Amino acid sequence: MNGDKQIWIYDTTLRDGSQREGLSLSIEDKIKIARILDDLGIPFIEGGWPGANPKDVQFFWEIKSEPLKQSEIVAFCSTRRPHKLAAEDEMLQKILAAQTRWVTVFGKSWDLHVTAGLKTSLEENMAMIRDTIAYLRVSGRKVLYDAEHWFDGYKQNPEYALKTLEVALASGADWLVLCDTNGGTLPQEIGQIVGEVKAKIGKQSDFKLGIHTHNDSETAVANALAAVGEGAEMVQGTINGYGERCGNANLISLIPNLQLKLGYDCIAPAQLEQLTQTSREVSEIVNLAPDEHAPYVGRSAFAHKGGIHVSAVEKNPLTYEHIQPERVGNRRRIVISDQAGLSNVYAKARSFGIELEKKDPACRQILQKLKELENQGYQFEAAEASFDLLMRSALGQRQELFAIKGFQVHCDMVSEIDGKEAPKALATVKIGVEDAEIMECAEGNGPVAAMDAALRKALVKLYPEIGQFHLTDYKVRILDGSAGTCAKTRVLVESSDGHQRWTTVGVSSNILDASYQAVVEGLEYGLLLSVKKGPSSCQQ
Amino acid sequence: MNGDKQIWIYDTTLRDGSQREGLSLSIEDKIKIARILDDLGIPFIEGGWPGANPKDVQFFWEIKSEPLKQSEIVAFCSTRRPHKLAAEDEMLQKILAAQTRWVTVFGKSWDLHVTAGLKTSLEENMAMIRDTIAYLRVSGRKVLYDAEHWFDGYKQNPEYALKTLEVALASGADWLVLCDTNGGTLPQEIGQIVGEVKAKIGKQSDFKLGIHTHNDSETAVANALAAVGEGAEMVQGTINGYGERCGNANLISLIPNLQLKLGYDCIAPAQLEQLTQTSREVSEIVNLAPDEHAPYVGRSAFAHKGGIHVSAVEKNPLTYEHIQPERVGNRRRIVISDQAGLSNVYAKARSFGIELEKKDPACRQILQKLKELENQGYQFEAAEASFDLLMRSALGQRQELFAIKGFQVHCDMVSEIDGKEAPKALATVKIGVEDAEIMECAEGNGPVAAMDAALRKALVKLYPEIGQFHLTDYKVRILDGSAGTCAKTRVLVESSDGHQRWTTVGVSSNILDASYQAVVEGLEYGLLLSVKKGPSSCQQ
Repeated sequence: MNGDKQIWIYDTTLRDGSQREGLSLSIEDKIKIARILDDLGIPFIEGGWPGANPKDVQFFWEIKSEPLKQSEIVAFCSTRRPHKLAAEDEMLQKILAAQTRWVTVFGKSWDLHVTAGLKTSLEENMAMIRDTIAYLRVSGRKVLYDAEHWFDGYKQNPEYALKTLEVALASGADWLVLCDTNGGTLPQEIGQIVGEVKAKIGKQSDFKLGIHTHNDSETAVANALAAVGEGAEMVQGTINGYGERCGNANLISLIPNLQLKLGYDCIAPAQLEQLTQTSREVSEIVNLAPDEHAPYVGRSAFAHKGGIHVSAVEKNPLTYEHIQPERVGNRRRIVISDQAGLSNVYAKARSFGIELEKKDPACRQILQKLKELENQGYQFEAAEASFDLLMRSALGQRQELFAIKGFQVHCDMVSEIDGKEAPKALATVKIGVEDAEIMECAEGNGPVAAMDAALRKALVKLYPEIGQFHLTDYKVRILDGSAGTCAKTRVLVESSDGHQRWTTVGVSSNILDASYQAVVEGLEYGLLLSVKKGPSSCQQ
Repeated sequence: MNGDKQIWIYDTTLRDGSQREGLSLSIEDKIKIARILDDLGIPFIEGGWPGANPKDVQFFWEIKSEPLKQSEIVAFCSTRRPHKLAAEDEMLQKILAAQTRWVTVFGKSWDLHVTAGLKTSLEENMAMIRDTIAYLRVSGRKVLYDAEHWFDGYKQNPEYALKTLEVALASGADWLVLCDTNGGTLPQEIGQIVGEVKAKIGKQSDFKLGIHTHNDSETAVANALAAVGEGAEMVQGTINGYGERCGNANLISLIPNLQLKLGYDCIAPAQLEQLTQTSREVSEIVNLAPDEHAPYVGRSAFAHKGGIHVSAVEKNPLTYEHIQPERVGNRRRIVISDQAGLSNVYAKARSFGIELEKKDPACRQILQKLKELENQGYQFEAAEASFDLLMRSALGQRQELFAIKGFQVHCDMVSEIDGKEAPKALATVKIGVEDAEIMECAEGNGPVAAMDAALRKALVKLYPEIGQFHLTDYKVRILDGSAGTCAKTRVLVESSDGHQRWTTVGVSSNILDASYQAVVEGLEYGLLLSVKKGPSSCQQ
């Protein structure tokens, strides 16, 4: 649509992204993320504000020792202090010491922020912008000028706001970046104002415009697109939209929107296919659970649930998918739930490597069982391993691994209530396998942990593979809270053998029983995988 | 800006929202959410597709027994089956049996979906739209027509797509709703196409246009705004943006964008102040953790972290906040600021009727304890009764009701595993009061129920008021799922004496211990209320 027009992507995950509440980055984290962004082909990576933070000084030092292949590392700072010479401002000395080719300087565009925030005069603010940029330019740096609070400032005092841009440009800034710092501006207004800037400043000189948006109105991505529509050539944002308050513009959505939908060039198509992996790796590094519903890259982004959708998407993916998931490195998933039709069951069975014909009566039987269990509170869309076992049961392909002969759990609560020692629970289990019986007991912090420990202790004797399995997630939901402690409980257990992960479900009015069901199915499914030894469709 | 122009909000949380992977709604959940939306003043609530799902039939039945105050409940269905009379289509009989005033009919706009999906002719699809709407109209219903895949269809075959709308209108549809079903269209294109529809169909008759968007490009909110900018008067979406794949347009962001930023009327200003509470209550009902970074309503939406921000925002909130948080029922938070914390404690104590001076050292002590406990996983926002007790402890105003001398819980799991009888748990408790000791035992379905029963049985002898108390809600959240069954568990218990309700919290790595803490505090707080006998600020 826009031919081969380039949009420059500027990532600020390492600076603005780390302002997110609950997110903090070590130097190693920052280096790892920078390398991932370099692999993705992001042209500009803002590394931080060396000087404002000791970590950031060290980051710039370390990143220099093993330079990036494709990306420019950018140092970030404010304009010089009021009534000081730029050359004598310590802050700027630290910026030069970071030895980057590019520096981003942010300055005030909004008169209110100058007088009420900086407590200086409008003229001095202008001098601060001019001196800082000019000083960095004579020191050999290229400069991006971030016009902070641009949109709010322009709405209040357009004349002053425009003057700050003109000064930045005249002082040698290579880019002018308009920032919606509070995130309150909506797309139509962003587009309109960018158009006005382009018209008013454009006459005077040739310059390049960038856009920096925040998500406080849930329109950060659209705001950036609106600016691009009016001629902005740089988009600033963060991986997964991390950032202060409600986050920054999400580059993970912006890049494919620009590239696949609007025909701009941002990164190479082969790099675009790394997008899903990039998103997940970064969330792993910052230790935040990936958003399963994230556009383009979420686990659910190309998941199909309703029966009508599933049969249509199998006929023609275009009918229910806005892009081919593979173009951003994601994949289609068929989800099982009580809204499922026969097509879902059929498609799912196939994906598990189970032979099943659509007309097979087992298909309808599985669907019947599925709906019955979901009525009782089971939920299989998040527990695909349990659904696999359910299908195998219906097809007579499931073997009983052992019989449970006895299982008791005992908790002595007072030890905790007196606050003297850890609470203790004790479980005993007796299982029968062929003619033999095995009895074991184990302790745990709570009754579920004790039960799980006793069961594994007994079973590992028969199935040594179990020694490799461990629980990686455990979730509880009370299904009808208003029935108080008699309510039904649904437990989801995620297990791992170190390579693959799978999830199983149990439901009961007794939380221990629900946990038991999920744990046992988790062990059974793990053994099934270890027999298959091939890659499984449940792999995550 | 747009004077008093009305935008009609149409909520589809109960139908499209429940398509979200991992979200499933019981009939009770649906009724609760409908009542919350009614309180918020949402004009249209789509209840589901009666007939496609047995749960939905029952929902429409139950909601009729206690009608809503402000909202219309809408039934949802497809057009009739190909080559069938509308009057003989069972599906439509079930829609009429739901007895709503409004019905939303969705039909195909995209020729590809007609021929490849429905496998019928383009003419027959047109007849299906016409017959279905006409039949519902003569049956006394008002009709919203959802044009599925409108934007993709229009781009492929604009002539046919427009004809489907004209047929729907001529058959008596009151609203035409343009759906971006796959969520792949960007705002500029949405605006352009809505403008074209308005121009091309607008000439022929007077009609009302709605917009239904999905978030696959992270622009669902902006897409809806773009349509409104071109004359759409209805916005469809869901609470918290729940929905299939990447979700639907988020009404929680759209409503304040339309109302506070663009000057449209959606709901009353007093109802807008319930927005934060609505978002959190619905996330609680569907048991999904609230998004702390959600625009407008997230816990971090008005949180200030950086030192510069904090001092500026204290001088003038406008400098770093796009709206006043109170207008949507949220509040400003200063992260890492004891002073702000102290004011909270002080304000909170006052709201509980506890005398506390800001300079009282107890104030700082409470804050310290609060932070310590919240670090451990306690959460007092939803458990104000526990917070009240915590304050009383710090002020030396809390009396020990009894001492626990022994408490054991025993579960025999095999009874359930064989499927022969109900699972059984047995609890024994020994409590000391002054010189006396009371020992009691009780059974329950599960260990928590048994524990609760034994404790009440012992205490009711001393405090007969306890006979009036019962648990009205019980919730469990695993705080760090990745620690498996050793993870910490947070339990919230809601209790009632028949007049008032109050919520208490417990945290432990042992779910029984966490439940015990919450249950005991629930009993203690109930006794406190029965002594006060006045109305309590904890009443819900």
